[in-house]
Amino acid sequence: NSYFKIAVLPGDGIGPEVVNESIKVLEAVAEVFQCKFQFSYGLMGAEAIFKTGNPLPDETLKICKESDAVLFGAIGDPIFDNNPDAKVRPEQGLLKLRKELGLYANIRPLKTYASLIDKSPLKRDIIEGTDIQIFRELVSGIYFGEKFTDPDGKYAYDVCKYSTEDIIPIAHMAFKEAEKRKKKLTLIDKANVLDTSRLWRKICQKIAPQYPDVQLDYIFVDNAAMQLVLNPKQFDVILTENMFGDIISDEASVIGGSIGLLPSASVGEENALFEPIHGSYPQAKGKGIANPVASILSTAMMLDYLELPEAAEKLKRAVEHAIENRYVTVDLNSEQHYSTSEVGSFIADYI
Amino acid sequence: NSYFKIAVLPGDGIGPEVVNESIKVLEAVAEVFQCKFQFSYGLMGAEAIFKTGNPLPDETLKICKESDAVLFGAIGDPIFDNNPDAKVRPEQGLLKLRKELGLYANIRPLKTYASLIDKSPLKRDIIEGTDIQIFRELVSGIYFGEKFTDPDGKYAYDVCKYSTEDIIPIAHMAFKEAEKRKKKLTLIDKANVLDTSRLWRKICQKIAPQYPDVQLDYIFVDNAAMQLVLNPKQFDVILTENMFGDIISDEASVIGGSIGLLPSASVGEENALFEPIHGSYPQAKGKGIANPVASILSTAMMLDYLELPEAAEKLKRAVEHAIENRYVTVDLNSEQHYSTSEVGSFIADYI
Ligand SMILES: CC(C)[C@H](C(=O)O)[C@@H](O)C(=O)O
Ligand SMILES: CC(C)[C@H](C(=O)O)[C@@H](O)C(=O)O
Repeated sequence: NSYFKIAVLPGDGIGPEVVNESIKVLEAVAEVFQCKFQFSYGLMGAEAIFKTGNPLPDETLKICKESDAVLFGAIGDPIFDNNPDAKVRPEQGLLKLRKELGLYANIRPLKTYASLIDKSPLKRDIIEGTDIQIFRELVSGIYFGEKFTDPDGKYAYDVCKYSTEDIIPIAHMAFKEAEKRKKKLTLIDKANVLDTSRLWRKICQKIAPQYPDVQLDYIFVDNAAMQLVLNPKQFDVILTENMFGDIISDEASVIGGSIGLLPSASVGEENALFEPIHGSYPQAKGKGIANPVASILSTAMMLDYLELPEAAEKLKRAVEHAIENRYVTVDLNSEQHYSTSEVGSFIADYI
Repeated sequence: NSYFKIAVLPGDGIGPEVVNESIKVLEAVAEVFQCKFQFSYGLMGAEAIFKTGNPLPDETLKICKESDAVLFGAIGDPIFDNNPDAKVRPEQGLLKLRKELGLYANIRPLKTYASLIDKSPLKRDIIEGTDIQIFRELVSGIYFGEKFTDPDGKYAYDVCKYSTEDIIPIAHMAFKEAEKRKKKLTLIDKANVLDTSRLWRKICQKIAPQYPDVQLDYIFVDNAAMQLVLNPKQFDVILTENMFGDIISDEASVIGGSIGLLPSASVGEENALFEPIHGSYPQAKGKGIANPVASILSTAMMLDYLELPEAAEKLKRAVEHAIENRYVTVDLNSEQHYSTSEVGSFIADYI
């Protein structure tokens, strides 16, 4: 196959700017690798609320369902964050999209770049050589359980629920990845307190014999939050539930000192969505200073998913080339720096 | 008052060793400051399960309820952690004790010690001058909500519930502390997803006008997990719910590079419990290498609580004296180091 339908959801804040650069590099990829991408744009997030009242309009969902993959920018706007009474919120759009597309696994690779290691808040010897792959469950748990706020505002609750079917597929995915890597899988949970965590442990214990080469470890989430800072190199593949994954993967993202570089993939049986892990960064919106690399590396993950591994490799090399030549945005070099679009063009030209 | 009943719960792992040193310094304090401590020992945790089948025997609870304050060591044993089917767990004892004593606020002060800053995994300029006080809600939320595991093991759930009465007292406590400090209070939540988080935000917004000098900020827990590593100095007083507090406060504890030094207090209307934040550290049990300082500084927090501020000050100075003179355990100096008991005696002698 050499023809791909890509749904493009630029979203909020710096989302549109960085997604633009992904489109630019995909056009270069199409030329060089003789394939064709057809882009269909959809509204999502705060943008979509302002224009349609709905954070995920039906039209957007339709475009995504008919696509081979979704490229997504970022979501969120401070207007909604500071209003606990808002009935409609941008994030609902993203959560609904994940659920509707069945994107049950959020995958985040974390590597340190030799030339950027000194930008990390952590010391060089702590982080050098860190190479972690995080699998976060994305369509269940407390995000999607029943929620309730008493009309008088006297109490509220959120239910964290997991069933075996929610856990088994992502557990296999993580075990398989561990098999291909250093054969070490760490489940992060709070099994000394939560019933759902004990269910995760049981299922992983049960599956483990099918992957005899993989060593399965467990760590409590509070301890994991410490160990990631104390000694991130002890981790190889990490598996965890939705809420813990949200916290732990963001914490882990600062290790390398370059959150503007980190991509993610959210995959299910039938579709997949690719997004940079940085947020909508509203303060930088429209200034041309956002780092497009995380979005571009997410695009590389998309190329791998579309079974264009050579194009994916080339794109990753192009990014490394830009970083090595210090052709980077202001977050990575405050002295000499280039705009979002200049960095995107430099990478596209290399391809 | 100069006569105090102290319940002593040594607990598991290195708990008994470090608590012993707290008793030693309290005996010195009693002599110098002319007061009297009457110690009543109780079983708790894995130790208690092995001996009585119950992680919190009634006798222990009774001792605690009749005491002016509780000194606690540590809890937990790997035997239970790796068995998701265990019916009785050490942690249940601690959770029940918190609930029964109404210890709704877990307070953790975090400071960096100039002489130990280089032990931190973070760079000096990131952490130097960090001074944070964390208030974690301790007797509600997902820890204490309804829990259920389907008998066939097909699903499980945990309910996170908060009512206004669970939030108001600890919110006031945190605002009051912020007033005494840099007048900055940060609520950590996930209000873009959770109903309970939105309840926290609403209540804090409502209380804020009573503390006009305090600036109230909000931050999502995923972002907080990043910011604590990127720039811990931006925080002064932190307020958060039970589960987020567990993760965030442990993450924060590694900033200073010396988790063996960090104390905590868990307080309610009628009682209070003081414990080091390090865990039971089973690998070190019985070796005489555990750092007693966290337990001893927890004891200093207890002296403050018992309205013996001079004794508390003296004890803190004694600890600083030991650290400055490098009279420390192996975790702080691998070349020249002293045993748990030697460090405790050195501190007691200074008093
Ligand atoms: C925007 C928000 C709902 C989302 C989440 O919590 O999942 C984000 O933090 C993420 O990690 O993708
Ligand atoms: C032992 C465990 C139940 C406990 C908790 O999660 O509260 C501990 O991690 C703590 O922070 O005191």
